[in-house]
Amino acid sequence: MEAIGAFVAGPRIFVKGQESGVLAGLSFAAKDLFDVKGIPTGAGNHDWPSGRPLPTRHAWAVQTLLDAGANLVGKTITDEVSLGILGENPFDGTPVNVRAPDRVPGGSSSGSAAAVAAGLCDTALGTDTGGSVRVPASFCGLYGIRPTHGRLDLSGMLPQAPSSDTAGWFARDALTFARVSAVMLHEKISESLPDHLVIAYDCFGFADPEVSLALQPMVEKLARLIGSSREDMLAPQGLSAWARAQRTLQPAEAFETFKDWIDERNPRLAFSVARALVVGSMLPESERSWARLMREEVRSRMAWLLPSNTVLCMPTTPVPAPPKGQRLSILDPLRDRITCLCAQGGLAGHPQVNLPGSTVNGLPIGLSIIGPRGSDAMLVALAQAMEKIN
Amino acid sequence: MEAIGAFVAGPRIFVKGQESGVLAGLSFAAKDLFDVKGIPTGAGNHDWPSGRPLPTRHAWAVQTLLDAGANLVGKTITDEVSLGILGENPFDGTPVNVRAPDRVPGGSSSGSAAAVAAGLCDTALGTDTGGSVRVPASFCGLYGIRPTHGRLDLSGMLPQAPSSDTAGWFARDALTFARVSAVMLHEKISESLPDHLVIAYDCFGFADPEVSLALQPMVEKLARLIGSSREDMLAPQGLSAWARAQRTLQPAEAFETFKDWIDERNPRLAFSVARALVVGSMLPESERSWARLMREEVRSRMAWLLPSNTVLCMPTTPVPAPPKGQRLSILDPLRDRITCLCAQGGLAGHPQVNLPGSTVNGLPIGLSIIGPRGSDAMLVALAQAMEKIN
Repeated sequence: MEAIGAFVAGPRIFVKGQESGVLAGLSFAAKDLFDVKGIPTGAGNHDWPSGRPLPTRHAWAVQTLLDAGANLVGKTITDEVSLGILGENPFDGTPVNVRAPDRVPGGSSSGSAAAVAAGLCDTALGTDTGGSVRVPASFCGLYGIRPTHGRLDLSGMLPQAPSSDTAGWFARDALTFARVSAVMLHEKISESLPDHLVIAYDCFGFADPEVSLALQPMVEKLARLIGSSREDMLAPQGLSAWARAQRTLQPAEAFETFKDWIDERNPRLAFSVARALVVGSMLPESERSWARLMREEVRSRMAWLLPSNTVLCMPTTPVPAPPKGQRLSILDPLRDRITCLCAQGGLAGHPQVNLPGSTVNGLPIGLSIIGPRGSDAMLVALAQAMEKIN
Repeated sequence: MEAIGAFVAGPRIFVKGQESGVLAGLSFAAKDLFDVKGIPTGAGNHDWPSGRPLPTRHAWAVQTLLDAGANLVGKTITDEVSLGILGENPFDGTPVNVRAPDRVPGGSSSGSAAAVAAGLCDTALGTDTGGSVRVPASFCGLYGIRPTHGRLDLSGMLPQAPSSDTAGWFARDALTFARVSAVMLHEKISESLPDHLVIAYDCFGFADPEVSLALQPMVEKLARLIGSSREDMLAPQGLSAWARAQRTLQPAEAFETFKDWIDERNPRLAFSVARALVVGSMLPESERSWARLMREEVRSRMAWLLPSNTVLCMPTTPVPAPPKGQRLSILDPLRDRITCLCAQGGLAGHPQVNLPGSTVNGLPIGLSIIGPRGSDAMLVALAQAMEKIN
């Protein structure tokens, strides 16, 4: 199973969870951005660990799963310092997406998604700043959550752009997803569902036609389950304007996060990763102040669209996983398109769950449900309800 | 001796030169940007060689030295794809500058300079686009030449910015330097010297005071040898304006050279190297067109300053070799200062020779002599004459 390559190189680790927790018997992996006591945090970059002390405690998310009885079975490959959403890491390798072996797994939580999809563990921790749980969940056909921004304790997790950073997790089935979510959210997953559905027609229009078509049966099922639905735009200002705001705020903040390291170590990075940081360092204040205002507009729009007991649905990604090993000039515009659908997460911080279950030419593609801030458990309950009526 | 680390990793190579040439018995090394038949050209970057066919012939410069009887004893470490002037390569390591072991060797012809300085070979080939022979010659205390741009055949040498690229060489003593130069330039090194010296007072003023002071005896010796001298400015528009022009034209051209490789391979690079390429890709046409005009002004100024039989002298670098392993925020302004003195080479293409012989606190520092275009052999003759009257 090791050959699947979802785990980072080096000795396999195993940390036993509490004997009697609610997750006893489950196995989990942690993206190599989460601290595990005594093990270097690799961050997907060979120049990251050197000169840093070993973690003296587990990250909060790791400790929480261990306390609930789950066993930690490994640390997983990530895009370098979480900068990437496709999951190709030239230092550690590209984890195999078992649902589409010639395709990328999605990133930056690439190894966590690949490990769960391959059955190497029951659940796995990831991080999501600009799409890093949502994109691999969509590409690998998994349940995956980006929780409400600011809800979970991120201590021991390597930051990227703190105003967008979240910790999330993956599962293959809705029941496991719900059990893990109840622990991580510290909230019972009730059976009460939202009573109104918003279908974001601009997002469906933005995705490839085959993607929107493939998701249609899931949308109809959602609408039947919830009872009341309407179509509306997610982004009146344009998905491209929202994406531009995120592509301004996130790299500028990421550069702030990593600039001391860059200055001290002149680290080796893939060109595309270095480029994101260089661009982050060069954005003029005029562009950044515009992006901050647009973020306020995005927050206001999403608060208006999503009163309590309402959920919005949209394609998680506009395309299924692209082939591995493509040139930057093909991947760059694709990445920008993916960002158009993911940007709302980093900008507004609403919780979002990817529902698997559809495919395009055999490739997984996910439907996202997004709720009001704090409605994470409701989204998980809806995911379970959707699976039950399969 | 291998521990000195000036050579690239892998099996040592040895290519015997012609039995009876004028350089018979001399050993030489070639910067790992020059093709050697059957050996991958590494270019200082681990993602460069893959997917490329092995060279089917030697680079012109390598063949020329072999034909003259010198033996090729190794390929030397270079800054990645020649982008760097300090000689710290995080993939291949930093060659040891035996004249200042805690200091950088200078780059990008770092291994070639280090190997000659350490006595591992008699001469070595380097390349100089923005200072890559001149800076390591100054830092390692060697004779080194940047020939007239366009004079030598660069076939089989990896290009960076073709309008500035040259191939040069190093030696520890003036006689070896002259013997190799006669072969490479295909011109007898006569004994006729220039009859006028221009002392570039703006360049001496720009260097650290200790550097200018340390070079003073060599300047006086030059003046005595030549007989007639005067002070003048090199750059009425400002050394900083000349440097800005070079820092615009060179990275923009380098990006053109490497953009297909970057696009196809998304190569791993040190952040500083990727940054140079990213910046090169982002320069607006307004800035580039200004730089092209400034280059014309530089060419006109240097043609006026340097009629035939005239030579100009200036410090090769404004400082001796800085300590190894310093952070980018210390190295970046230092690199910019070095570029202020080197820019004229890439912009105007005049031949330049570094004369060793001075030190600051024990660290080598070089005096440069620059002549009219095509006067390479006259500069070599002057270097020999200077050594003779030591």
